[in-house]
Amino acid sequence: MTDRHEMWKELGMDLEAHDTLCAVLPTAFGDIFLSQENRPEGMAFYDMVVSDIHGIRPAELIEEQKRGRKIFGTFCLYVPDEIIVAADGIVTGLCGGSQFWVPDGEKVLPKNVCPLIKASVGARLGRTCPFFRIADMYVGETTCDGKKKAWEILGEDVPLHIMDMPQMKRVKDIEKWIGEIKEFKQVVETFTGHEVTAENLHAAIVLLNKRRKAMARVYACRKADPIPISGKDVLLMTQIAFFDDPQRCADQANALAEELERRIDAGIGVFPKGTKRILLTGTPMAIPNWKMHHIIETSGAAVVCEECCTGTRYVEHLVDERPMMMEGQLQALADRYMKNNCACFTPNKGRIDDIIRLAEAYHADGVIDVNLKFCTLYDTEKRDVKRALKAAGIPVLSLETDYDDTDAEQLRTRVEAFIEMLG
Amino acid sequence: MTDRHEMWKELGMDLEAHDTLCAVLPTAFGDIFLSQENRPEGMAFYDMVVSDIHGIRPAELIEEQKRGRKIFGTFCLYVPDEIIVAADGIVTGLCGGSQFWVPDGEKVLPKNVCPLIKASVGARLGRTCPFFRIADMYVGETTCDGKKKAWEILGEDVPLHIMDMPQMKRVKDIEKWIGEIKEFKQVVETFTGHEVTAENLHAAIVLLNKRRKAMARVYACRKADPIPISGKDVLLMTQIAFFDDPQRCADQANALAEELERRIDAGIGVFPKGTKRILLTGTPMAIPNWKMHHIIETSGAAVVCEECCTGTRYVEHLVDERPMMMEGQLQALADRYMKNNCACFTPNKGRIDDIIRLAEAYHADGVIDVNLKFCTLYDTEKRDVKRALKAAGIPVLSLETDYDDTDAEQLRTRVEAFIEMLG
Repeated sequence: MTDRHEMWKELGMDLEAHDTLCAVLPTAFGDIFLSQENRPEGMAFYDMVVSDIHGIRPAELIEEQKRGRKIFGTFCLYVPDEIIVAADGIVTGLCGGSQFWVPDGEKVLPKNVCPLIKASVGARLGRTCPFFRIADMYVGETTCDGKKKAWEILGEDVPLHIMDMPQMKRVKDIEKWIGEIKEFKQVVETFTGHEVTAENLHAAIVLLNKRRKAMARVYACRKADPIPISGKDVLLMTQIAFFDDPQRCADQANALAEELERRIDAGIGVFPKGTKRILLTGTPMAIPNWKMHHIIETSGAAVVCEECCTGTRYVEHLVDERPMMMEGQLQALADRYMKNNCACFTPNKGRIDDIIRLAEAYHADGVIDVNLKFCTLYDTEKRDVKRALKAAGIPVLSLETDYDDTDAEQLRTRVEAFIEMLG
Repeated sequence: MTDRHEMWKELGMDLEAHDTLCAVLPTAFGDIFLSQENRPEGMAFYDMVVSDIHGIRPAELIEEQKRGRKIFGTFCLYVPDEIIVAADGIVTGLCGGSQFWVPDGEKVLPKNVCPLIKASVGARLGRTCPFFRIADMYVGETTCDGKKKAWEILGEDVPLHIMDMPQMKRVKDIEKWIGEIKEFKQVVETFTGHEVTAENLHAAIVLLNKRRKAMARVYACRKADPIPISGKDVLLMTQIAFFDDPQRCADQANALAEELERRIDAGIGVFPKGTKRILLTGTPMAIPNWKMHHIIETSGAAVVCEECCTGTRYVEHLVDERPMMMEGQLQALADRYMKNNCACFTPNKGRIDDIIRLAEAYHADGVIDVNLKFCTLYDTEKRDVKRALKAAGIPVLSLETDYDDTDAEQLRTRVEAFIEMLG
């Protein structure tokens, strides 16, 4: 494997601290992923990416920067990738998924903030993630309290644009969101030096729809029994999509989907037919957060769908490709993005509908609603989720977790009891 | 004192639980307020109100309801009272300030939510506060995560309108806020059956400015040394203002201010000249939360100003009275309300400027920045507040507190050390 230390050094990273992260990841990945039996061959690409996760893609991004392209780091599904891609910019997700980064985040943020935000801030300020160093501009949004305040801290260290999310979903809120996308378009144009035109925006919409369709095709294969791919592996594909080139992401996902479709035809699965099927819902699982999937899939069940930002919300709902003029395209973008039902909205009844719809579509035997500690939004919605699922006759388990592993055994005990209860 | 049990029963209250609250309040009030020496005579009104806090004003409100007037319960300074008053409605604050209500809130909300929100929800659902029973409609806003989700729970039990706050303060955000005020106006008109006209809105603007001016006059007296009134007493006046009739509130505040001005002329104070002067900043202190003031003022210092929602934000900044047409009036309202610098905005540099300006204006020797547990917004801003005050050469102490009293002695130790350090 190429030695990346020179590149990391040029990025101003803390090499010593970063080496300790690099030392533990391969073992964790091996234990969690490579121990699985009968994995689809299409996963080889993702395994390769993870094996050099702070090397391959960062090196590509640096090459693109040398050609004059700008890299935008984002933290939320509501930020429309299409605008960035249209202006020949590159999007990279920047959500921290490891406890490794949390202590550096806690130097500037209260402990009572969710680990995802603490890890994201820590990864930047601790200089221990190349993606956080490479991004030329960060794009924030006003989804939750923790993020709203985190931008003020990150903004002292890196150029940062904030999109003001509406907190409701009335017609005028969608209009407000169009206004935010318009402003974002101007910011991106100025920053990249490339105008966003109806033509390049159309191409970007088509490209990102292609990515959605390819990934959704993989997701759809999980409706089969036996299930041709583990939940973990689909989560990994999804997590890597946030960092990858969209065309390559679509190609890899399509190749994987073809393989899975052949498996379904042949009745091949990675779990025995009849394995209990779990729909996960709740807070996002940023790479390398594989904790809940690993616990569930080593407790006798399979994760068949994730109703969350690192799940269906990323792959569902295409942007309408028909409008060929800017106004219609911006409207189509706002319409599509506002179809996502994050707990940051009030009310957020649409999420309940999504969970029930997906539980039925994926033939889930039960739902596990898991939220990251100190996420007030998802934590509060647990009550509604539980009530609605009970009314629909779908068993549900509500859990809270943190990035560290101290709660793993306790979670496992509860998950095992839940799966057993599913009969 | 009139027995109010019949009224409370008609309000559907839990009389038994409520009696336990009524049993402890007078002792707490006596210990904290009546033990003070040389209090202004003008405080007699507020003492009288507190002595029958769940009786006098609730009885008045019920009388007004019988005359057909509607009562609107609000939770936030950004909701414009003027609209409600113009439509002949009555505003009552509904923020819970006692640990008594927290357990009932925790039945439906996560423990990791700030006590103010838990107490507010608990006071409603536990049926242990007449104001929460009397209000015909609640008005929520999207200031923070906890509130956004609390509205969904409260909205199942009571008519509730939500105003979507912008999370930033650019020109277009003020415009958005005007749109929200317009919608609110329609909701209030429909609910009360009274049209809001330029005439009655003008009268409401003048009336509520009168209240602000009268209260600000009391606040201004605290700039004197010796200080003619304790911080506790001003806090009490402010807390009661949220519930009181605006005209009476203005009259009482003006009477109190006159007395304080005479005291200043005569060099009369409630603390010895030279007593260390503290500016409090942070989360709101809803009645009966008198904890920090009591600790500070029994530790050798005086609270001379509160930069918070139960402080200067309620009394500063008049609405421009010159516009006589609806459009101009709504703009003036939006402009005035957006001058408040709540930590829910990103960025919120204006609050830092306010703290420094007020610390200088009130000749503060030090600032105590206190936030309620699990308020991510104020908790995160502590870092900026501390940094800015250090740069300005103003000593600062950052504290966190909860509604229960278990942390009181620990807080006292830290406050005493801070005051001692002020020399």
